[in-house]
Amino acid sequence: MEGKEEDVRLGANKFSERQPIGTAAQSQDDKDYTEPPPAPLFEPSELTSWSFYRAGIAEFVATFLFLYISVLTVMGVLKDKTKCTTVGIQGIAWAFGGMIFALVYCTAGISGGHINPAVTFGLFLERKLSLTRAIYYMVMQCLGAICGAGVVKGFMGKTRYGALGGGANSVNHGYTKGDGLGAEIVGTFVLVYTVFSATDAKRSARDSHVPILAPLPIGFAVFLVHLATIPITGTGINPARSLGAAIIFNKDKGWDDHWIFWVGPFIGAALAALYHVVVIRAIPFKSK
Amino acid sequence: MEGKEEDVRLGANKFSERQPIGTAAQSQDDKDYTEPPPAPLFEPSELTSWSFYRAGIAEFVATFLFLYISVLTVMGVLKDKTKCTTVGIQGIAWAFGGMIFALVYCTAGISGGHINPAVTFGLFLERKLSLTRAIYYMVMQCLGAICGAGVVKGFMGKTRYGALGGGANSVNHGYTKGDGLGAEIVGTFVLVYTVFSATDAKRSARDSHVPILAPLPIGFAVFLVHLATIPITGTGINPARSLGAAIIFNKDKGWDDHWIFWVGPFIGAALAALYHVVVIRAIPFKSK
Amino acid sequence: MEGKEEDVRLGANKFSERQPIGTAAQSQDDKDYTEPPPAPLFEPSELTSWSFYRAGIAEFVATFLFLYISVLTVMGVLKDKTKCTTVGIQGIAWAFGGMIFALVYCTAGISGGHINPAVTFGLFLERKLSLTRAIYYMVMQCLGAICGAGVVKGFMGKTRYGALGGGANSVNHGYTKGDGLGAEIVGTFVLVYTVFSATDAKRSARDSHVPILAPLPIGFAVFLVHLATIPITGTGINPARSLGAAIIFNKDKGWDDHWIFWVGPFIGAALAALYHVVVIRAIPFKSK
Amino acid sequence: MEGKEEDVRLGANKFSERQPIGTAAQSQDDKDYTEPPPAPLFEPSELTSWSFYRAGIAEFVATFLFLYISVLTVMGVLKDKTKCTTVGIQGIAWAFGGMIFALVYCTAGISGGHINPAVTFGLFLERKLSLTRAIYYMVMQCLGAICGAGVVKGFMGKTRYGALGGGANSVNHGYTKGDGLGAEIVGTFVLVYTVFSATDAKRSARDSHVPILAPLPIGFAVFLVHLATIPITGTGINPARSLGAAIIFNKDKGWDDHWIFWVGPFIGAALAALYHVVVIRAIPFKSK
Repeated sequence: MEGKEEDVRLGANKFSERQPIGTAAQSQDDKDYTEPPPAPLFEPSELTSWSFYRAGIAEFVATFLFLYISVLTVMGVLKDKTKCTTVGIQGIAWAFGGMIFALVYCTAGISGGHINPAVTFGLFLERKLSLTRAIYYMVMQCLGAICGAGVVKGFMGKTRYGALGGGANSVNHGYTKGDGLGAEIVGTFVLVYTVFSATDAKRSARDSHVPILAPLPIGFAVFLVHLATIPITGTGINPARSLGAAIIFNKDKGWDDHWIFWVGPFIGAALAALYHVVVIRAIPFKSK
Repeated sequence: MEGKEEDVRLGANKFSERQPIGTAAQSQDDKDYTEPPPAPLFEPSELTSWSFYRAGIAEFVATFLFLYISVLTVMGVLKDKTKCTTVGIQGIAWAFGGMIFALVYCTAGISGGHINPAVTFGLFLERKLSLTRAIYYMVMQCLGAICGAGVVKGFMGKTRYGALGGGANSVNHGYTKGDGLGAEIVGTFVLVYTVFSATDAKRSARDSHVPILAPLPIGFAVFLVHLATIPITGTGINPARSLGAAIIFNKDKGWDDHWIFWVGPFIGAALAALYHVVVIRAIPFKSK
Repeated sequence: MEGKEEDVRLGANKFSERQPIGTAAQSQDDKDYTEPPPAPLFEPSELTSWSFYRAGIAEFVATFLFLYISVLTVMGVLKDKTKCTTVGIQGIAWAFGGMIFALVYCTAGISGGHINPAVTFGLFLERKLSLTRAIYYMVMQCLGAICGAGVVKGFMGKTRYGALGGGANSVNHGYTKGDGLGAEIVGTFVLVYTVFSATDAKRSARDSHVPILAPLPIGFAVFLVHLATIPITGTGINPARSLGAAIIFNKDKGWDDHWIFWVGPFIGAALAALYHVVVIRAIPFKSK
Repeated sequence: MEGKEEDVRLGANKFSERQPIGTAAQSQDDKDYTEPPPAPLFEPSELTSWSFYRAGIAEFVATFLFLYISVLTVMGVLKDKTKCTTVGIQGIAWAFGGMIFALVYCTAGISGGHINPAVTFGLFLERKLSLTRAIYYMVMQCLGAICGAGVVKGFMGKTRYGALGGGANSVNHGYTKGDGLGAEIVGTFVLVYTVFSATDAKRSARDSHVPILAPLPIGFAVFLVHLATIPITGTGINPARSLGAAIIFNKDKGWDDHWIFWVGPFIGAALAALYHVVVIRAIPFKSK
């Protein structure tokens, strides 16, 4: 077991010469990387820093723009019966995924670019940020989402917005609530697993340019999950997005299944964190 | 407040270990970066340099190609009633966004790759270029746009070009002028905010390869705004593009709302500059 | 012939100044690169390493997610008769190609990111991994694919899943079995040729950031082959994907042509390996 | 005029601090870059090098795969009357542009990744390769294209291939031959201008990672020109692609306008070379 522990401590493939395809095989050399200590639950000094407040504002603005562009795209597509004279359902998937790509690129240096309470939750479970910061981010994300959906409602008019469903998530006809919950869990797993893999600190230590590219697979993950699960739930995988649309839509249809879009993403994010910590990083098996 | 100013002066997240996802957390270390002095309003020496004239020519050619490809794509889609035998409305969004990606990539090293008076205006507000250069760029962009739309009219024939709307922007039926103005403001905010974030000088100082990637999120921002607001205004967010199409189309329908496509983008660009300077860079709060 | 061998030994274009366009002309300088020795067929020490088991788990999870997202997208498109209210056939191609992009990006540092027995086979022929590892990967990929398709069947319900064809590959009406086999051979050649080119070890030695970008052309290769051959076979080019869908679908229609989706991809991968070794790397002509 | 020449000799923007957005402002510092001497017209030593023959084979294989995937995609779309059950016209544009992206990425290190006689011609005009090599590349590209289209004909069957137009280029109903020629000229200008800008040697000298990214804007340029000009000519901008399809289709309809798809691309490439040399690099104005 000595050998195994050694291997795990290095967190790397011992046989790097034969590691094929590999982008960035994780370094065998732990000189250039030490696991950062977990973030404390409460960190009073954060609260005196402008960067803390700035980060929350950036999350608010990013989630505002995310909901604005994506829900407006949904409205434009649903307004038309044949869909052929619109950007189509595929265009909706691009709107969600593309915005996440652009916004993560833009805000990553300011707040980390979460724009999603499930991502914040997953990173909190890995102890990458304090509880204070996690809750603050989630609140700002939800407020931003509400405002973004609200502006779309202003543009569309109350009647039309309501008639078109307001971009709110619900389990579609032909699927059970269990199907919807499962789709949200696996979908969020795909997203948060991509976030963890693409931004793995060990990668960054050696290949400092890697995280620069990370927004692209992260945005693609959101796009791909939408391609697959729009027919099932309209695709949440982001509780702030679901909450914002539900509050502005504010009809029973939007609220009945709403719990699914909180429980599903949080379970999916927790599973992704578990997978990353236990299998990929094997942190529990590390010797001190 | 001392601590806050310190933090702001560093322009960085104090708690970088816990900064998650982050591509390029802005440096805590100001050794490698000093704010460049603002560009003077008038800089006579510029006018004796070939690079100044070359930059204007590059803006002209880029805006020419931008209008040529995008308006020709619009014509091809609108010519067909069912849209199914065309690249579709989504294809129009790709044409606008994709051209901005390719052209920013190609001309960024020559002129900065603005291709849009609203971007030039936003960068001028941040004092990144002189007033002389800003006005010169805007004139060349508008001339390029007029020529680009003109060539498309030549290919399509006057009658067909007029019947198909000439790619000109106007507020569509079912939306008020206020909706249109709002859509242009928020849309341009998304674009100029992405330009500022993706090309932030602080980023470049540390990660010199970042700006190389910047054209991708910038092009995507244009694509995404088109996905969302084509149903409302056809999407301007670029006064040169709107002016070029309006002049070549030259019908009342094209001119009535034309002010919206100058006022909207300029307000949006100004808000993005304000947000970037005040919130993200916190320049007003910096101690000398 | 001396000159030729010299040239081959350097593995580079002798006339690098005139090598146009070129991304990364292969180095003329062999100081920074030595051919790694071929992987042994059996390497007992691998079996005591956690990274070996972790790599297999990563292949399992990646192939699971690949089938889950892609087959679910196929179901959503086929459920609708007119296709206009779905992401369309093009959306299916994006789902397959996009997932490969995101998953190769995420798992390349852990297992090499094969997610496809044909890729594993091609890399084994180039002796980049041991026979033990190759077989282990293929088994894990097939198990992951079966589970992924199984979850989709759970969501869709047995009847609907069966009626929609279950995402299983078969030669479509209007094409012969020979056409289908040919399409699989050339399609897999495109994929494995891209894998070899994008991850060429000689490239990596000099431009360590190249492999970081490799997932993008690899994902695009999968997308492009789907654009071309969905009308012929539904596109396999991945025996695990074909096996998973066939086992969960489990009807004669899915099994009759199943051999094509193993023989075709393996022949295509072997041809790509041959082309890379003999023509591009010219290894057989190298002097010792 | 002294100052101007100085500026030109440096080939850079004198006012780099104020150069906004800019990816890679061209270096003011000529220490790290000297213009390579023009390639000789004939270079006998090339002919004794394996890398010369290998480059031609790589061009053959790449153009073969390019035609195979793109023409097969065209066939799949045209086979269906409503287009809704296919990848659509937009999917055709992706097939052409995406293949160029992937193939340039894969072959750039071997042959420079031209895959297009017009690109070879443009680079020859800039004296980046010898006349021998230029002619050799063009011949191999045409042979590859013929074989690629031939394999598609084999899969589709002679009757069906002929009925669907064989992917051959011609000026569509509603446009004059002059429109078609103009569309080919401007379209090829967009492509070759992107090739020159994205691979500018001055860029590479300073930012060695830039060319790695170059295949992406080059592929996008091809995609965008297809979006715009498929309704006019089906889009050539590549004489090998047009020749291959015309020879295999071999009907009057394919041959009548065929000269347009050689004259147009060669004029477009020459204009792009002229623009790059005279305006962007200002080589004629340089002092010795």
